Amino acid sequence: MSDSGEFKRDTEYIPDRITKDARKPEHGPVEGELWPVEPGRYRLVAAKACPWANRSIIVRNLLGLEDVISMGLCGPTHDERSWTFDLDPGGRDPVLGYERLQEAYLKRFPDYSRGITVPAVVDIESGGVVTNDYPWITHDFFFEWRDHHRPDAPDLWPDDLREEMEDVMERIYHEVNNGVYRCGFASSQEAYEEAYDRLFAALDWLEDRLSERRYLMGPQITEADVRLFTTLARFDAVYHGHFKCNRNKLTEMPALWGYARDLFQTPGFGDTIDFFQIKKHYYVVHKNINPTGIVPKGPDTSVWLTPHGRDGL
Amino acid sequence: MSDSGEFKRDTEYIPDRITKDARKPEHGPVEGELWPVEPGRYRLVAAKACPWANRSIIVRNLLGLEDVISMGLCGPTHDERSWTFDLDPGGRDPVLGYERLQEAYLKRFPDYSRGITVPAVVDIESGGVVTNDYPWITHDFFFEWRDHHRPDAPDLWPDDLREEMEDVMERIYHEVNNGVYRCGFASSQEAYEEAYDRLFAALDWLEDRLSERRYLMGPQITEADVRLFTTLARFDAVYHGHFKCNRNKLTEMPALWGYARDLFQTPGFGDTIDFFQIKKHYYVVHKNINPTGIVPKGPDTSVWLTPHGRDGL
Repeated sequence: MSDSGEFKRDTEYIPDRITKDARKPEHGPVEGELWPVEPGRYRLVAAKACPWANRSIIVRNLLGLEDVISMGLCGPTHDERSWTFDLDPGGRDPVLGYERLQEAYLKRFPDYSRGITVPAVVDIESGGVVTNDYPWITHDFFFEWRDHHRPDAPDLWPDDLREEMEDVMERIYHEVNNGVYRCGFASSQEAYEEAYDRLFAALDWLEDRLSERRYLMGPQITEADVRLFTTLARFDAVYHGHFKCNRNKLTEMPALWGYARDLFQTPGFGDTIDFFQIKKHYYVVHKNINPTGIVPKGPDTSVWLTPHGRDGL
Repeated sequence: MSDSGEFKRDTEYIPDRITKDARKPEHGPVEGELWPVEPGRYRLVAAKACPWANRSIIVRNLLGLEDVISMGLCGPTHDERSWTFDLDPGGRDPVLGYERLQEAYLKRFPDYSRGITVPAVVDIESGGVVTNDYPWITHDFFFEWRDHHRPDAPDLWPDDLREEMEDVMERIYHEVNNGVYRCGFASSQEAYEEAYDRLFAALDWLEDRLSERRYLMGPQITEADVRLFTTLARFDAVYHGHFKCNRNKLTEMPALWGYARDLFQTPGFGDTIDFFQIKKHYYVVHKNINPTGIVPKGPDTSVWLTPHGRDGL
């Protein structure tokens, strides 16, 4: 939290990368260790509630990596120490044997003192966390695990669009993905109002952009869409009320709402969304915003399955 | 609060009535003292934030009683002791000279221990409160002050509709006016969900009723409309997010939303609505629901002035 009450996200993650043959990655920095791509070696630990983890679930689906990277799912709520495997029989991840994701972090770094976050990739044999650096996790699922993609996997990072895509994703990250948190976690009226204005300015920009394009980068789905989608899916259910992002609902922005439904109805997207877990996470974990812990029954989510009318774009 | 976490409203008010010549009133019980109708003698103390007080402001306007019953307005927030005249120069009501409405209650009842509520009618000369029994305040503005209404004042209580109107108002009171509070103040998940279901069942009933009628009782505005309007005006601004009444916004129910705008655009209604004060009241006063005290910037309220299309009904 800054002096003015603005929320600042801790962005220091474990920077290890998993690359083909543990060689230098095709893109991006090498600030930690390099691990080799190896089917069956790693376990993705995610949570359906968390938008950052939701990205990795979607990309794993879209690329068809389910058989080479297994997945463990934490429950929607966590305490101050860790996300937990409370949905699993006996409250333990069946592969790692852990009750708390924290165990994988401490296995690798006994003094680990930063947040225990999802998504995290865990080396199954050693039980230690490899990385929790979510933008690189999905990036490397695409570039480094390419030999294991299903044959018709989408090109989530088209070469000729990469530069523009990085700009679009950068703006979406700061103004939208993190922008909703900046609204909800502001600790002064001024910081909140500034965050609100920034968020809706960005949504207006996206509304405009998506009036002419079916997806963010044109006629095909890319990583940029995955990154925007996980915030949009939570917008009316959580951010609108809980984080006071309430100029309007997503359903009141025609292009964005059509776009969000279009993705929701695409295999790999909507099937990863669990509105009950999403609401429970935010409304129970943030006791400072919602001290009663009561979880709203609304909104009606059947609207997500209505025709989106975007096929013609 | 009941054992099951359900919110129960304290409904014990000062039951005095102001009647023509202090005679037995045309309708309703005499459980307190009778005071005579007398232009200039009383001051209505209200607050634009409060839906119960808002009714009295609207009815006073509709009937043209502004010159015979003066009005003092408290600011949107209050502390545990009382509503205050913080909007007035020097923080005092210019007629009563009070800083806190509590002073009028204590002037009349030195040991008054119940809530200090608006609306309240105060006897200007003695400075003591006469009544805070809000349904009877607006009722008596109509029946007992009739000699002082403006010539074209609406018939807010048509004789031939009274019986049906009482039933409609009773249901609106329990299920809607108080129903939103039952959602917001529930202290258990079960009590909240039950309250939510009851509220939206009633709103569905009203949506249906208003699909065929311009106003609740037919082609003319009655007291029943005043009572429903003050809750609808606060619905998207406060109850939807703050009280978790979020199956849908008011704007998503076509008949109710058209109806609400129709009234809003009728002189005497929309001009009494101050969205800023309304939001400030709820979001600042209920620290147990909104500990940060941050007031949402949304929703966009310009939509209240869009065409309602109800003229044809």
